[in-house]
Amino acid sequence: MARFKKIAIIGVGLIGGSIGLAIKKRRLAKEVIGVFRREKTLEKALTHKAIDKATMFIADGVSKADLIIAASPVRSIPKIIKEAAKHAKKGAMITDVGSTKGWIVNEVEKIFSDLRHISFIGSHPMAGSEHAGVEFARADLLESAPCIVTRTARTNKAALKEIVAFWSALGAKVKVMSPPAHDKSVSLISHLPHIAAFGLAGAVPVKELAYAAEGFKDTTRVASSDPKLWADIFLTNKKEILKAGQAFEKYYKQILKAISEGDYSKTVNLLKKAKAKRDKLIYEK
Amino acid sequence: MARFKKIAIIGVGLIGGSIGLAIKKRRLAKEVIGVFRREKTLEKALTHKAIDKATMFIADGVSKADLIIAASPVRSIPKIIKEAAKHAKKGAMITDVGSTKGWIVNEVEKIFSDLRHISFIGSHPMAGSEHAGVEFARADLLESAPCIVTRTARTNKAALKEIVAFWSALGAKVKVMSPPAHDKSVSLISHLPHIAAFGLAGAVPVKELAYAAEGFKDTTRVASSDPKLWADIFLTNKKEILKAGQAFEKYYKQILKAISEGDYSKTVNLLKKAKAKRDKLIYEK
Repeated sequence: MARFKKIAIIGVGLIGGSIGLAIKKRRLAKEVIGVFRREKTLEKALTHKAIDKATMFIADGVSKADLIIAASPVRSIPKIIKEAAKHAKKGAMITDVGSTKGWIVNEVEKIFSDLRHISFIGSHPMAGSEHAGVEFARADLLESAPCIVTRTARTNKAALKEIVAFWSALGAKVKVMSPPAHDKSVSLISHLPHIAAFGLAGAVPVKELAYAAEGFKDTTRVASSDPKLWADIFLTNKKEILKAGQAFEKYYKQILKAISEGDYSKTVNLLKKAKAKRDKLIYEK
Repeated sequence: MARFKKIAIIGVGLIGGSIGLAIKKRRLAKEVIGVFRREKTLEKALTHKAIDKATMFIADGVSKADLIIAASPVRSIPKIIKEAAKHAKKGAMITDVGSTKGWIVNEVEKIFSDLRHISFIGSHPMAGSEHAGVEFARADLLESAPCIVTRTARTNKAALKEIVAFWSALGAKVKVMSPPAHDKSVSLISHLPHIAAFGLAGAVPVKELAYAAEGFKDTTRVASSDPKLWADIFLTNKKEILKAGQAFEKYYKQILKAISEGDYSKTVNLLKKAKAKRDKLIYEK
């Protein structure tokens, strides 16, 4: 049974396209409308059956939607939501997929102080890959993926419940928290690992790449991600990332120090503690 | 046609077992003998058909072998080769699979100053995984994997040629270089990424692991590797790892600095340069 009549997805890249495919596979809406500024991308999204209808205009796409999903790069989200809110019908809900939440939710709530007829709930489905574009979209991208949904003092509780149910219906493991708690969590679990991967790839002389084996490939895979997308994310979560950097450097430097001192048992202990944490992800799937 | 009559593999874990499977698949030897100190492991190796015969004694395993491969943890390799050399027949070749070469080759060449009837060539097939044990061994583990073979002033050229041909026959992409050049290459392309992965996993509070998505999983996958194996590797390549650490930190800190200054274009440029290198591994396979 369809939970929504119309869902509008603004931005039909990897994430937006995958959400469209998942909505259609699970029949959560009668119609999915894709909004994007480039016609060619919309054509691709239609070909991939990620959306049912396409439009280049936000006003046109959102006017009859019950649910509007902003699936564009972080820094564009508040602007896009502002435009969408102007044209949304009464009772519509808006959410997003941005990887930082404090900055986005704060910017959007500024706009929404004047708009009482629609609700905004911040979301961050933690799925993706180093690839960009609807051609990489998959209906199962969100299955079993963590999805953080944010609550603030101004959050409409009924809308929060609906958005949680929506992501759960797509197969995601939803957790509700405040935007600052989200930003802290993802700084260590996502943003900093990306910076470390970019750092490792950036530091390797090109001629050494010939000897890159699986270890290097996996450790640096996310360094193939879109630089502009990630610069947006990093710059909107600066404070937490710098704190996460300190935690990482502390552990990393302890390992290097144990190595430089030739201290075998200290080195083994530091690696063991790290392995114990990483192993939890193997067994607790 | 078999290139060797008997090959002895000392250490039948993931790498030793995979080499055994590959030799048998490609019929490079009439017989593969596995040597290990635990009977249970030998039984597993026999069950997996990674070896034809098994023995717990080096003397017994190597006495008739044309090629002896030391596939044990780095720090045990010189000692094992010393024992193997004592019992090897005239004209036998010995190689290893250790991840550091300067220390191993140096230690082994000290022993070999008295042993003119056998040759030692250092090797490092760059394949593996975060898993340990012959149950994870695969005949194709070395296919397309980089394999560095070392040459020193004392290297026997005919034996070097044979060892290069052997790894090539297993499907590896072989490159010959000096032990110090090897240690420098792998410090940035393998050892340091492992330390960064251990550092990232070690720094994350356990409760945040619930939000770990594919990015974190890939970046830290190798932090599930065996702590003792890797402590051995790190401690025997200390000098180069500390240098690699400086190169990594320089790039990583430049990214963090650009973020802390809110400098979008500088951040994008640093990420772009890193991505350009990482992307080479996608397209140049």
